[in-house]
Amino acid sequence: EALVSPDGTVTEAPRTVKKQIQFADQKQEFNKRPTKIGRRSLSRSISQSSTDSYSSAASYTDSSDDETSPRDKQQKNSKGSSDFCVKNIKQAEFGRREIEIAEQEMPALMALRKRAQGEKPLAGAKIVGCTHITAQTAVLMETLGALGAQCRWAACNIYSTLNEVAAALAESGFPVFAWKGESEDDFWWCIDRCVNVEGWQPNMILDDGGDLTHWIYKKYPNMFKKIKGIVEESVTGVHRLYQLSKAGKLCVPAMNVNDSVTKQKFDNLYCCRESILDGLKRTTDMMFGGKQVVVCGYGEVGKGCCAALKAMGSIVYVTEIDPICALQACMDGFRLVKLNEVIRQVDIVITCTGNKNVVTREHLDRMKNSCIVCNMGHSNTEIDVASLRTPELTWERVRSQVDHVIWPDGKRIVLLAEGRLLNLSCSTVPTFVLSITATTQALALIELYNAPEGRYKQDVYLLPKKMDEYVASLHLPTFDAHLTELTDEQAKYLGLNKNGPFKPNYYRY
Amino acid sequence: EALVSPDGTVTEAPRTVKKQIQFADQKQEFNKRPTKIGRRSLSRSISQSSTDSYSSAASYTDSSDDETSPRDKQQKNSKGSSDFCVKNIKQAEFGRREIEIAEQEMPALMALRKRAQGEKPLAGAKIVGCTHITAQTAVLMETLGALGAQCRWAACNIYSTLNEVAAALAESGFPVFAWKGESEDDFWWCIDRCVNVEGWQPNMILDDGGDLTHWIYKKYPNMFKKIKGIVEESVTGVHRLYQLSKAGKLCVPAMNVNDSVTKQKFDNLYCCRESILDGLKRTTDMMFGGKQVVVCGYGEVGKGCCAALKAMGSIVYVTEIDPICALQACMDGFRLVKLNEVIRQVDIVITCTGNKNVVTREHLDRMKNSCIVCNMGHSNTEIDVASLRTPELTWERVRSQVDHVIWPDGKRIVLLAEGRLLNLSCSTVPTFVLSITATTQALALIELYNAPEGRYKQDVYLLPKKMDEYVASLHLPTFDAHLTELTDEQAKYLGLNKNGPFKPNYYRY
Amino acid sequence: EALVSPDGTVTEAPRTVKKQIQFADQKQEFNKRPTKIGRRSLSRSISQSSTDSYSSAASYTDSSDDETSPRDKQQKNSKGSSDFCVKNIKQAEFGRREIEIAEQEMPALMALRKRAQGEKPLAGAKIVGCTHITAQTAVLMETLGALGAQCRWAACNIYSTLNEVAAALAESGFPVFAWKGESEDDFWWCIDRCVNVEGWQPNMILDDGGDLTHWIYKKYPNMFKKIKGIVEESVTGVHRLYQLSKAGKLCVPAMNVNDSVTKQKFDNLYCCRESILDGLKRTTDMMFGGKQVVVCGYGEVGKGCCAALKAMGSIVYVTEIDPICALQACMDGFRLVKLNEVIRQVDIVITCTGNKNVVTREHLDRMKNSCIVCNMGHSNTEIDVASLRTPELTWERVRSQVDHVIWPDGKRIVLLAEGRLLNLSCSTVPTFVLSITATTQALALIELYNAPEGRYKQDVYLLPKKMDEYVASLHLPTFDAHLTELTDEQAKYLGLNKNGPFKPNYYRY
Amino acid sequence: EALVSPDGTVTEAPRTVKKQIQFADQKQEFNKRPTKIGRRSLSRSISQSSTDSYSSAASYTDSSDDETSPRDKQQKNSKGSSDFCVKNIKQAEFGRREIEIAEQEMPALMALRKRAQGEKPLAGAKIVGCTHITAQTAVLMETLGALGAQCRWAACNIYSTLNEVAAALAESGFPVFAWKGESEDDFWWCIDRCVNVEGWQPNMILDDGGDLTHWIYKKYPNMFKKIKGIVEESVTGVHRLYQLSKAGKLCVPAMNVNDSVTKQKFDNLYCCRESILDGLKRTTDMMFGGKQVVVCGYGEVGKGCCAALKAMGSIVYVTEIDPICALQACMDGFRLVKLNEVIRQVDIVITCTGNKNVVTREHLDRMKNSCIVCNMGHSNTEIDVASLRTPELTWERVRSQVDHVIWPDGKRIVLLAEGRLLNLSCSTVPTFVLSITATTQALALIELYNAPEGRYKQDVYLLPKKMDEYVASLHLPTFDAHLTELTDEQAKYLGLNKNGPFKPNYYRY
Repeated sequence: EALVSPDGTVTEAPRTVKKQIQFADQKQEFNKRPTKIGRRSLSRSISQSSTDSYSSAASYTDSSDDETSPRDKQQKNSKGSSDFCVKNIKQAEFGRREIEIAEQEMPALMALRKRAQGEKPLAGAKIVGCTHITAQTAVLMETLGALGAQCRWAACNIYSTLNEVAAALAESGFPVFAWKGESEDDFWWCIDRCVNVEGWQPNMILDDGGDLTHWIYKKYPNMFKKIKGIVEESVTGVHRLYQLSKAGKLCVPAMNVNDSVTKQKFDNLYCCRESILDGLKRTTDMMFGGKQVVVCGYGEVGKGCCAALKAMGSIVYVTEIDPICALQACMDGFRLVKLNEVIRQVDIVITCTGNKNVVTREHLDRMKNSCIVCNMGHSNTEIDVASLRTPELTWERVRSQVDHVIWPDGKRIVLLAEGRLLNLSCSTVPTFVLSITATTQALALIELYNAPEGRYKQDVYLLPKKMDEYVASLHLPTFDAHLTELTDEQAKYLGLNKNGPFKPNYYRY
Repeated sequence: EALVSPDGTVTEAPRTVKKQIQFADQKQEFNKRPTKIGRRSLSRSISQSSTDSYSSAASYTDSSDDETSPRDKQQKNSKGSSDFCVKNIKQAEFGRREIEIAEQEMPALMALRKRAQGEKPLAGAKIVGCTHITAQTAVLMETLGALGAQCRWAACNIYSTLNEVAAALAESGFPVFAWKGESEDDFWWCIDRCVNVEGWQPNMILDDGGDLTHWIYKKYPNMFKKIKGIVEESVTGVHRLYQLSKAGKLCVPAMNVNDSVTKQKFDNLYCCRESILDGLKRTTDMMFGGKQVVVCGYGEVGKGCCAALKAMGSIVYVTEIDPICALQACMDGFRLVKLNEVIRQVDIVITCTGNKNVVTREHLDRMKNSCIVCNMGHSNTEIDVASLRTPELTWERVRSQVDHVIWPDGKRIVLLAEGRLLNLSCSTVPTFVLSITATTQALALIELYNAPEGRYKQDVYLLPKKMDEYVASLHLPTFDAHLTELTDEQAKYLGLNKNGPFKPNYYRY
Repeated sequence: EALVSPDGTVTEAPRTVKKQIQFADQKQEFNKRPTKIGRRSLSRSISQSSTDSYSSAASYTDSSDDETSPRDKQQKNSKGSSDFCVKNIKQAEFGRREIEIAEQEMPALMALRKRAQGEKPLAGAKIVGCTHITAQTAVLMETLGALGAQCRWAACNIYSTLNEVAAALAESGFPVFAWKGESEDDFWWCIDRCVNVEGWQPNMILDDGGDLTHWIYKKYPNMFKKIKGIVEESVTGVHRLYQLSKAGKLCVPAMNVNDSVTKQKFDNLYCCRESILDGLKRTTDMMFGGKQVVVCGYGEVGKGCCAALKAMGSIVYVTEIDPICALQACMDGFRLVKLNEVIRQVDIVITCTGNKNVVTREHLDRMKNSCIVCNMGHSNTEIDVASLRTPELTWERVRSQVDHVIWPDGKRIVLLAEGRLLNLSCSTVPTFVLSITATTQALALIELYNAPEGRYKQDVYLLPKKMDEYVASLHLPTFDAHLTELTDEQAKYLGLNKNGPFKPNYYRY
Repeated sequence: EALVSPDGTVTEAPRTVKKQIQFADQKQEFNKRPTKIGRRSLSRSISQSSTDSYSSAASYTDSSDDETSPRDKQQKNSKGSSDFCVKNIKQAEFGRREIEIAEQEMPALMALRKRAQGEKPLAGAKIVGCTHITAQTAVLMETLGALGAQCRWAACNIYSTLNEVAAALAESGFPVFAWKGESEDDFWWCIDRCVNVEGWQPNMILDDGGDLTHWIYKKYPNMFKKIKGIVEESVTGVHRLYQLSKAGKLCVPAMNVNDSVTKQKFDNLYCCRESILDGLKRTTDMMFGGKQVVVCGYGEVGKGCCAALKAMGSIVYVTEIDPICALQACMDGFRLVKLNEVIRQVDIVITCTGNKNVVTREHLDRMKNSCIVCNMGHSNTEIDVASLRTPELTWERVRSQVDHVIWPDGKRIVLLAEGRLLNLSCSTVPTFVLSITATTQALALIELYNAPEGRYKQDVYLLPKKMDEYVASLHLPTFDAHLTELTDEQAKYLGLNKNGPFKPNYYRY
């Protein structure tokens, strides 16, 4: 997910240690954005993630010492096309293998492809996309293609592109413009190359972070008006869309897939239940048993973190601002405390609030030696990392994504991923979760593209519950799970259609 | 919670074994109700519960062989009042002790009393109530009194009244009309005595099951129009209100407290997590470890049952009709099956669907010897118990609430509570959960009574989220739980009021 | 299990409230016992348990107002025998039903019966037994009979006999001498009637608590010398045997079945995991979620209690004296504290140490209002209940097995079962666990009775591991569990016999 | 831990894919060993592990393209000594940092150092050691030094040495002979350099795998006789010692630290509970939720694996040969099956038996596509990997430690670490666990070195329980855990010394 600073400067260089970093308040940023911006003054997305750190593909080819910018290279795929820009088209075979592996774990998309052999629900669709370029995205793109769509794609993050996958996509004919380690200038150049093609008017947008949408909205307003629908994945991007909508400037129906049930519960609760353990292990090799941990925030992410750590034998404390979530924490067996009460004794501090300055310099000053601090929430504002960029503290990078911040008296705090998202920076996202998200995106595109006139107005919509249920049902075969069907009599008794939707909209799952 | 049969006959006599029982489809019943009914033809509430089975108070005085009907007795309390009708006013002291014990576990209501010492938010309120008469209800009633209200009360269930508690309430001046073992005629007579008092026009209704509301609506339409608000607790009662509302006949604002977050999550998930174990133990003394169990339905109740049994070492299978809940079951580690696939091998079958005929005679025929069958869902329709009332099967009552149904070949099925709610019939509901519900009811009454003109129309409302949060916050001190407060800066960042509400309405918890 | 006071007086009358009770230190008692004692001065077993409290059978017939002592009655069973003494032979049919139900959950004993149809491994055995007289014991006795043994039986506890079961056994021809509510004199009279029969020399003893063994040892030394073997079940009885052995006075081989793997792990860990919840619920109806609990002792019992309460959402603290168990508690996710550190804040205190005065008056003085105190350890010494029998404290019995002890300032402590074993007093033991124990006893009898000369000397033995494994294997079919068999090649590789034993003696499971 | 092939050839080249590998039955190997062996015919240790794969240090310097053999280099540390042989003495600073980090997580050893400031319990000890050379070993070695010992050290594994750590040790004056990637010849050369030094007679051996012991026993029998004690860590090494002892050839007391309680429970149960998740995640990035897993073997390792996977939402089946462990699996909530029953449906197969050919080619043939197969047991014989080295199957290495084995029909099996130990090959061992082991080793050395004449004979001993308890107590401060002390009265009541040991030897924990 992308963060944007309102002043248009690059606000973070994650690989550079000890640099003073200022993060702007991202919540209000959209309406503050300058209305006229040239390329250089445009704010740039800096990903909090570099999902590639431990991915397999990266290891084959990252040691490449090819320093030439892809923009300066002349490359053609085996069919002679050069309508793409990737690091090295020769890596296509490696990437294809990664894509094939991913296909095996994305049966829902493969099922969609199969069903689309007769009809092509996206025939005529011209989709421009801006997401992380990974093997899973590739499966999505190739599924969209199989459903009839034409696609052009850029990366939503300057670090997260898997070069081999981008090469494989380019080789198989997708106009892809992305590589790992783009500059800010490269980033917008790639987006523009997707959008601005003679004779190609996109009619659908698939976005993750809102940069692509914003670019078209600002630079190509006429093109924007002809878009049939926008599908947006990220909290930030959705926030921007709601602001556009409130301001009366959203002339296109948009689908908020971020708040669909499957995404919320699976991406957050179930995925974080696993990735908190994974992220901590890969960075610190610590043992969980017996460790005292405070988890700030008991939303879906916090619930997942707490459940996992408790199961591994950690003693977990929770902080909350919302009394309902607080009471849930109590009933689930966690001591509800204020951070100050336990900060001196805990071995690990994990933030999952979506809030800012949850862990302050004052807290950091009081932590015990070797305390691990990390963030699982949705942005890097939760830990006041900036407050640690002061002369009396020494930063020492001990591993990738692991810094020791050393106090004058020798106390060390172990800061992971510089306060960015641990689960994106230091662990991988399971393909299964990505499959749910990608299937949701595909269905949202189909829905918006095929919806009869008038079903969707110029507003932001949640995915219809029935489609949420459909996404879920497509993933049940993975678990050899057998759904029960209502009898006619039962359906009548319950007042339900036998095929769903099965729950009222306010149902909480 | 009350079940009503549309033909107006008493449809169940839980204490009589081997009687053929017919349950009507309760969902459609309300609009089928005869519009003109005399007392005898009125349908009667039959409770699925008899919460008294294991309660402490019951044991002191149940052996009373006093056979005189309370309606035929002349009783006065110590202040000389006879405006009540209970089993035996002399049991008041026993009941008072039970109430005092309950008070210690209902700190939220006690806190409300304290805050009300200055202002009386219910001053002028004339509340007529129809609920289970238990020690916890007594704490609620006395709290309403302390807040300024006048109350008159009847029982919503002919079996569930604790006579000692009713006596204690009568002794302290509450007009209570209820005893354990009322006849149907008694039931309506009690309700009428609450309502129909010269010079007393009730202005608020607190109902559990909708019978009181219905009685006033039908019998005293003019009185009904002057009611300021209805607070309804039960699924059935809420259903009836929505039907009235749809039919345009609801001339009073009503509050659906059944679907409030705290009630749903705490009554269902957390309470059932404990009561499934309790109910099974008290009836069968079985060991959970190693047992194979199938849980039908993975809503809040099913989730609670599954979590508890898994934790105790059972092997749990789940059936579901909703693919989203089904996927949750998978991710939580349960095999999702159709009932047929496991029916031959399981040791226990538990229904929690809210559906009918989930366990059919065919299933029952295929179960193995000694299989235990019980229901945790919201009505007794889930197991087709009626299908077991056939000549070739022998019923043997082996303990209170436990029947062996014996097949011709000697196979026995262990049926608990004749398919009624296990958690109400065979275990007790923790006071803490009742405290949450009672506090919610009190706040709903205060809200409706004090709401400025126009805030609530003639419709059914959910409790405002802020009050849900308030109920939760009143219960945190029980756990010595310390809530974190937002700083001004954080509240601004999040766009929230520091005092809540903290979540959007669609938040799922 | 039996407790004995060294001064020979009856030290407890559990049903009498507010009586001052003094418990002697039972550990040293055996060698202090007077060597010459008449009937009246013999120390008496007082059970800590009254397992009948919630049992089903009790409810049918307990209201019997027959006050005649069984010893004064003339009773015959239907075959004309009067060699028994039970409450009422007419209750036999009720008891038979209970026995039949128990048979269904004791498949291992039933399997032993089946295998014994050809050979009778106990042919010629004359077993005198002294145990709790329950349906499960009846299944054991009838199994011993089927294996060829003659049996005579008394109760090891004056309260625990199920009269109906005793009647059923008498009816089917077993000389049983036991009823609920024996006096001390009755107790020894019954034992003597089992032992002292003309023309009957017992050759095997099955004992639970050591009273029967002691009686024969003291009163009939010649008979004692002819015994082929003793099987002892209880901690106390085993302790007495070891003392006899150390003193060189044990002239008979004895089998300590208390320390067999299956008994230790299943009786303690798995059984207590369930009974702690059951015992607390039945007595207090409390909710576990969010409660703070301190468990004193992290042996098998403590591990079971902690696991169950943690799973139900309690916050659990542990105290320990043994650093290894302490470290296990840490790794399992429990804060290891001294009792003083948490005594002010916890809602529940549970002792499982086997130690004395673990909870002192000082601790009790510091507990918060409504704190629940109970004991799951092996004797009633763990909580210093005697210290609460002082004039300034008021005792109030609020339910069976539940006392409120009230401090002058109104603070109440909820004391369960007066500090006796919660799992025996306030919950039932699952038949499955009793099945394991009973099978172990039966196998131990067979082993001792059939062992070739010289295999067992005049000492106390643990059950051979192979028999422990055999007991376990007999219980696997209950769970439809399928054991894997070693191939010849694997057995050779591991250096094991294909049929076990599979582990070295020091293996810890 | 080292594996030895009896024919003396190098039997495995873990980095070479698709090579046919034959593993000998290691159990019988010792007595088959040729009595006269030259260097080339000596059996070689092949580690199943390469713990370095994901370690931090490795990443700094592994890309070193220095191809010169350390044996051919002339290196001196800063003090001028050249009595060592490591990869590159200049890496010492990196290694020192790793050691310092490790020190922070090994407080028990640091506490031993502190206590030794006055007395030097190992003064005069000349220890020759052969273990993995890691930061944690370095902390142990420097502790032994602080306690007064002189040490010389070699690696027990040709791959596991962390070159930087070896350099740091050499720099600080320890004669270390080890580097990553030794040849077999190097391996024995290093050991010999430790042992065979003019004027240096070692008197203590610390061994892991038995190679060092064997070398001295065979090559320097006179030196061997003067050894005061051997401390052996591994299953294999312990097995060899028992064989020597049985053969009457062990002329030195030896301590088996492998079977100490702390090692068994912590290394196996608690460590594997975490490393199974870690190993699977790092290799496959799979999601655990909803996956079906079969775990072969329910010993400590199996218990840990099952607990972790169940907690993460997997559905776990267990296979067992031992009925007691099988019954434990049932009570813990796992279906006990034969492997054949579930092999077609599971997503993951994990072996933890210590047995051979638990997963056969027949099983592998029946697994479903994408099934993951791995081993957590003590040797690589559990999965019949050799059976997969056949022409019709294609091996494809997709990541480090991850092979796809592809059937002719396209089915892929995902084989991890070629069947070697997953927890050693694909995850790191937490420092805390290594701390327990290292402390145990240090205490065992102290005990053997200081034991009065006659306490230990020429045999293999288990660590005295009291020292096991001491090791545990030294690790409690890590968790801020507060042990309770017995009062004099309690100690007397229990018949225990207040300082332990607290349990009988047969106690199972």
